[in-house]
Amino acid sequence: MGSVAHSVAELDASVVKITRSTNLRPVPAPGSPEELSHSHCTDHMVTARWTVANGWETPEVKPFENLSIPPTASCLHYATECFEGMKVYRGYDGKLRLFRPDCNGERLLMSAQRTALPSFRYEELKVLIAKLMQIDGPRWLPKDQPGRFLYLRPTLIGSGPHLGVQTPKEALLFIIAVPWPDPSKLKKPEEGVKPGLKLLASAPDSIRAWPGGFGYAKLGANYGPSLVAHGKAQAIGFDQILWLFGQDRQVTEAGASNFFIVWENKETGKLELVTAPLENQLILAGVTRRSVLHLARSELSKPVGSLAPVEVVERSFTISEVEQAWKEGRIIEAFVCGTAFFVTPIKLIRNGDVDMDMLEAGAARAGYAAQIKAWLEAIMYGTDGKENHEWSYIIEGESEK
Amino acid sequence: MGSVAHSVAELDASVVKITRSTNLRPVPAPGSPEELSHSHCTDHMVTARWTVANGWETPEVKPFENLSIPPTASCLHYATECFEGMKVYRGYDGKLRLFRPDCNGERLLMSAQRTALPSFRYEELKVLIAKLMQIDGPRWLPKDQPGRFLYLRPTLIGSGPHLGVQTPKEALLFIIAVPWPDPSKLKKPEEGVKPGLKLLASAPDSIRAWPGGFGYAKLGANYGPSLVAHGKAQAIGFDQILWLFGQDRQVTEAGASNFFIVWENKETGKLELVTAPLENQLILAGVTRRSVLHLARSELSKPVGSLAPVEVVERSFTISEVEQAWKEGRIIEAFVCGTAFFVTPIKLIRNGDVDMDMLEAGAARAGYAAQIKAWLEAIMYGTDGKENHEWSYIIEGESEK
Repeated sequence: MGSVAHSVAELDASVVKITRSTNLRPVPAPGSPEELSHSHCTDHMVTARWTVANGWETPEVKPFENLSIPPTASCLHYATECFEGMKVYRGYDGKLRLFRPDCNGERLLMSAQRTALPSFRYEELKVLIAKLMQIDGPRWLPKDQPGRFLYLRPTLIGSGPHLGVQTPKEALLFIIAVPWPDPSKLKKPEEGVKPGLKLLASAPDSIRAWPGGFGYAKLGANYGPSLVAHGKAQAIGFDQILWLFGQDRQVTEAGASNFFIVWENKETGKLELVTAPLENQLILAGVTRRSVLHLARSELSKPVGSLAPVEVVERSFTISEVEQAWKEGRIIEAFVCGTAFFVTPIKLIRNGDVDMDMLEAGAARAGYAAQIKAWLEAIMYGTDGKENHEWSYIIEGESEK
Repeated sequence: MGSVAHSVAELDASVVKITRSTNLRPVPAPGSPEELSHSHCTDHMVTARWTVANGWETPEVKPFENLSIPPTASCLHYATECFEGMKVYRGYDGKLRLFRPDCNGERLLMSAQRTALPSFRYEELKVLIAKLMQIDGPRWLPKDQPGRFLYLRPTLIGSGPHLGVQTPKEALLFIIAVPWPDPSKLKKPEEGVKPGLKLLASAPDSIRAWPGGFGYAKLGANYGPSLVAHGKAQAIGFDQILWLFGQDRQVTEAGASNFFIVWENKETGKLELVTAPLENQLILAGVTRRSVLHLARSELSKPVGSLAPVEVVERSFTISEVEQAWKEGRIIEAFVCGTAFFVTPIKLIRNGDVDMDMLEAGAARAGYAAQIKAWLEAIMYGTDGKENHEWSYIIEGESEK
C-alpha cells in the first residue's frame, strides 16, 4: 500500500562509456583562421542525457558530432539553457590542469536551477572533463607545448520535444573543447598604440539585468538580448559594453566579464581595488573575479615590489564616481576579468560624450592587473612553486595513443 | 577602384522547394495522450537558412525531422532565438484560415532584431505557412471536421557554429505545425466547479521583465527564466503566474498571456475594460490583445445584448487597485488572452494571503470575454457573415493528394 519512492539515477562520471573517433580532425595552428573562428572543436565530446522519469543516463565520451534536436525542443524556444566557460591548461611540468572546476560545477548547477533544468552532482563535472581530456589532451594540447590551453564549454539544455511552456522533462548535458585564440598573444599592438580594451558605457534605455531577474546566473538568456548593443559598440571601435544599472548609473559588468578599478580614495588617500557586489544579483559571480579578490585580499594588503597596498572593496559604485576620479587624476588602472578574457587592462571608457583614458594618470603606480595575472598564470600552468596549488585540479591518466 | 555593393538574397516564399514525405505520421486523435504531449508535429516543416554573406537561401517544405545543430551553435548558448505562436483554423466553409498573420510576421521581425537575428520580409511568413498547409492541411485538418485548428510555431534561431559571444552569422527559420488540445474542450469541469484559470501573483523578488530589457519581444529569453515560478505555482494548483512589476506592484501579464479586467470605475460608476499599456515595453504586444482592444472599442462602446457599454483603458494599474475593487464588489470579470489560451476567464487571483474570487460579484453583469471570444471565433472559422473578414488570410490551393 502507499507508493514506493522512485529514485532516479544521479550523474555518475565513473561509469562513462567511451567511444573513440576513427576519423581525427585537423588541429588548427595557433592564430589560424580556424582557431579564430571559435568553431573548431576537438575530436570528442561528452554527452549525458537526463529524463524526469529516470534521471541521468550513462554519460558518454564520443566522437564530436552535431546534435540531433527536435524542432519542438525547449532549448530552441524557451532558452532553457545554461553554460560554463572554463579552460584546460598544459602546464610547464607537462601536466593538464583545470582551475577551480568545482566553482564552475556549482555555478552550472545554480544556473540550471534558475531556468528549471535538472539538478546534478556538480563534482562530477570535472571528472567528465578529465575523461574527455585524457583522450583529447595529448593531441590537442601537446606535452611539448606548455603554456597553451583549450576553452571548455559545459552546456546544459532542455532537449525534450514538448512544446508546451513548462519545466523541461528531458535535458542534455554536453561538454565540448575548443581551441581558442590567446587574447594576450592575439593582437600585436601597433607602434605607439597602447594595449587594452575600449569600453562603451551602456545607454540608459538598455539594461542587461534587474533585481529579481537572472543576471547572476550563466543563462543563455543574458547573452542574446545583449548582442545588439555589443554589435553596435564593436561597429564603432569598442571591445565591450560597460553595463550600467539604475537611475544612479551603477557600474555592473563589462561585456561578459567582471569589472575592476583601482583608484585613490579621495578622503583617505589610500588605494582601493573596487568591484560591484554580488548581493543585488545583477552580476555574474565570476570564478576569476572571486580569485582576483582572494589574491588581492591575501597578497596585496602589503606592498609587493613597487605596488602600494590596496584595500579590496566590493560595493555598488556609479559611473559618476569613476568620472570624478578620472577628472581628479585618482585612477590607477582598470581591468576586466573572466575566463575568456582572463585579466585584461582597460585603456578607455566612453560614457556619453566623455572619453576617459584609464592608462594616463596612474601609469607610474599601476601594475596590479599584471601582478594578479602573473599569480594566476603560475597556478594555471604549474610554475613558480605552484605545481600543486589547492585551486588546481590535475588531470592524470592521459591516453598514450 | 571602390567596392561593389554586395546585395544579399531576401527571404522569398515564391521559390520554395517542396519535398514530400513518403512516410506519413499517424494523426493523433483529439484529446489523445499524443495530442496532449504538444510534441507530435505534422508530416512536413518549413526551413529557410540565412548566412551573413549570402542572405536567405531557398526556403524548403520538407519531411518533418530533427534539426542537426552544431554543439557550438549560438542558439544553444546565447539564446539567440525568437518565435511566434499562431494557429491555422479549419473553417465551417471548409476553408483554411490564418488570423492576422502579418501581425505575427511583423512581431517576429521585431523580436529577431532585439536579439541580433537577421531581418526578413515579414509578409513572406504567411506564404510559407500557406505552402506548408497546402500539403498538410487536408490530412491534419480534414475538411469535414470544421472548428478544429493546428498550432503553428515559426521560430528563428542562431544556428552557426561560432562559439564567440557575437551577432549570429548564420540563422535558421523553421515553421512547424502541432496538433494542440483545445483548451475550451479539454477540461470537463467537475460538478460544482466553476470554469476558469487560477492565477498566482508573482513574489516581489521575482521579476519577468524590466524597462530597458526585452519583455516586449517574443524571445526565448523571456520564458526559460520564468519556468521555475510557473512550476511552483502549478504544484500548488495554479494555472499561471500573474506577473507584477515595480515597487507599486503593477499588473503586467499572466503567464504567457495578456491580462484584462472589467471593473466599475469608483468615481464615475461606469464600466471599464482595463489592460496594461505597451509604452513601458514590459509586456508582449499580443495579436489577440490588439484584436480584443479593437473589438471592444468598436463594438462595446454601446450596449450589446445584456452587456452594458465599457470604456477601454490601456494604463498601468496595480494589484492594490484590483484588490480594492474586489473588496468593494466592483469587479465584473477578468480574463487572459493569447494564441495558446485564446480568451479564457479567470476565476481566482491569489496575491500573498488574499484570495480574490473573480466570478462572484460581477456574475450578473459579466459576459464580455465570452462575447469577444464569439466574435473572434466567427472570424477565425468563417461563420456569421465573417467569411471574408479583413483579419483573415485564406489559404487556397490545398493539395488533393
